[in-house]
Amino acid sequence: MPGTDRLPTADGVRAAAGRLAGVAVRTPLLEFEAINRLAGGRILIKAETFQPVGAFKIRGAWNMMVQLDEDARRAGVVAFSSGNHAQAVAWAARRLGIPATIVMPHDAPAVKVAGTRSYGAEVVQYDRYAEDREHVAARLLGEKGGTMVPPYDDPLVIEGQGTVGHEIVAQCAAAGVIPDAVIVPCSGGGLVAGCALVLREAWPRTGVYSAEPVGLDDTARSLVSGTRERNAPDARSICDALAVPTPGRITFEVNRRLLAGGLVVPDDAVRSAMEVAFRLARLVVEPGGAVGLAAVLSGCLKAGGRTVCVVCSGGNVDPALFAGIISTAPAPEE
Amino acid sequence: MPGTDRLPTADGVRAAAGRLAGVAVRTPLLEFEAINRLAGGRILIKAETFQPVGAFKIRGAWNMMVQLDEDARRAGVVAFSSGNHAQAVAWAARRLGIPATIVMPHDAPAVKVAGTRSYGAEVVQYDRYAEDREHVAARLLGEKGGTMVPPYDDPLVIEGQGTVGHEIVAQCAAAGVIPDAVIVPCSGGGLVAGCALVLREAWPRTGVYSAEPVGLDDTARSLVSGTRERNAPDARSICDALAVPTPGRITFEVNRRLLAGGLVVPDDAVRSAMEVAFRLARLVVEPGGAVGLAAVLSGCLKAGGRTVCVVCSGGNVDPALFAGIISTAPAPEE
Repeated sequence: MPGTDRLPTADGVRAAAGRLAGVAVRTPLLEFEAINRLAGGRILIKAETFQPVGAFKIRGAWNMMVQLDEDARRAGVVAFSSGNHAQAVAWAARRLGIPATIVMPHDAPAVKVAGTRSYGAEVVQYDRYAEDREHVAARLLGEKGGTMVPPYDDPLVIEGQGTVGHEIVAQCAAAGVIPDAVIVPCSGGGLVAGCALVLREAWPRTGVYSAEPVGLDDTARSLVSGTRERNAPDARSICDALAVPTPGRITFEVNRRLLAGGLVVPDDAVRSAMEVAFRLARLVVEPGGAVGLAAVLSGCLKAGGRTVCVVCSGGNVDPALFAGIISTAPAPEE
Repeated sequence: MPGTDRLPTADGVRAAAGRLAGVAVRTPLLEFEAINRLAGGRILIKAETFQPVGAFKIRGAWNMMVQLDEDARRAGVVAFSSGNHAQAVAWAARRLGIPATIVMPHDAPAVKVAGTRSYGAEVVQYDRYAEDREHVAARLLGEKGGTMVPPYDDPLVIEGQGTVGHEIVAQCAAAGVIPDAVIVPCSGGGLVAGCALVLREAWPRTGVYSAEPVGLDDTARSLVSGTRERNAPDARSICDALAVPTPGRITFEVNRRLLAGGLVVPDDAVRSAMEVAFRLARLVVEPGGAVGLAAVLSGCLKAGGRTVCVVCSGGNVDPALFAGIISTAPAPEE
């Protein structure tokens, strides 16, 4: 399998874009007057909610899995994920005819567990606070064989996710705009790392920021300390998609060199951003997918008079949670 | 003011597209694997929910109002509307510096009344089942003077709405596809008439259909009988945006010549389409905006093996209604 020990590159992102043509959706870059007014600047939203499976994750999973040889495909793949990577691997596996086993935490959103099963993958659940998911997955690999599809810490996965940034560069160029900042939701750091590779090359003066919720701010703290910090084991957030113990080894190696900083927002700001996305942009965004929008709407990164591109990375939210968040809206205005 | 008695034309739509460049959003044409699978065909969704004010209505309002001379602008505009046209006129009026008075029914969704006021328009409410809104508006015009901006029965308004179809033609051409059918939500019939003008010219073999809810199916019945039929005064539907007494005079003159037929769907199919749009497309669509999607998902128009373009015309839905609809979802699957 192509070298998993090398660092990902901007050329690798461009190669991934070729592999993903006709597979991933070239999601629109949207702008809303009402959100610009609220933020006091120009906000461009990359709506990865419109991907198959409702999140960017198919980009990385596909870019790695499509390069597996016949023997590896026959032996199948294993992945561990709280939800969106699970669905992405299951989706790509079905499309490529590869058997897939997905390890998911017991408290993953029902919508994501059901989605994963609907693609024909076998789902194995575990207690995310009592067991280490990597050990569970390793045990499965030992029993069944096959290839692990890592959710972020792999050059091919990172380069696949980076195609989001590749599209942002092309879409901004077509619109004649260079953003002052780009904010990307961050769990293991694969999406922001891949994006940073191409964004920083295209726009050396544009700051690329990770966004995380309070408590799961391992990347923000690691960027400050210079070493990979860990989240407290009992940390909880509404952002189920962003729960990892610590930044990836490869992703952090990229992010520590390329990111302008790590933005950290409270869950209340995430809820508010989801409500704003519903009311003013008519977009369905899940908590982890809205953390970047929350960073700019809450003023964590000041948009005043600037152009800020925000990746809304996923839209798989349990209906009851979404219903609760939009029902506690302030009086409508725009 | 440019001739209100002429019929709208495809050339007029193209002229409107020029006036709307940089004003209306060129909304994306989206496609979702999971919705294709559900429909058994290829469904392309024109997401007019992403316009400023959350609906296509700014296209027609702008195309008419931007052509008012200085004196007419100073005297102000009056409009009557259940919500989306109200917001569109208020929005265009603010942008053009024109005073606006909007007549809205007492039971218009709060989100639309508040939206209209937020643009600085004066809102006058009336009882839609006890008073005739055209009489109320005429009385206001008598008192205040100014120009009426009709919601649909005006060639400039129809040509403005037709720019949705103009974009669909360009976007399908770029994707190398010619739809077998295009379905457009219909109240007074301005949007579908304007779209039909350009769609039928570009694709003579493509059927253009209006979509209406049961009870407010005046256009469908009129297309059959050949004369403008009326809805029962006590007809009710979840599709607040589509409540009109009868098709427009000009719109019906266009629609009776160009439409392939009128599709009629029950409110339950509309609710179901809204839930599917939320769950599988991560789109927020209001009832009246979802009636075209409902027509194809409910099998009212069979999609089997064909390509069907559906306009989702608006996304202004009261949060409580939306929360209720998504919370009664079936078990998630895609």
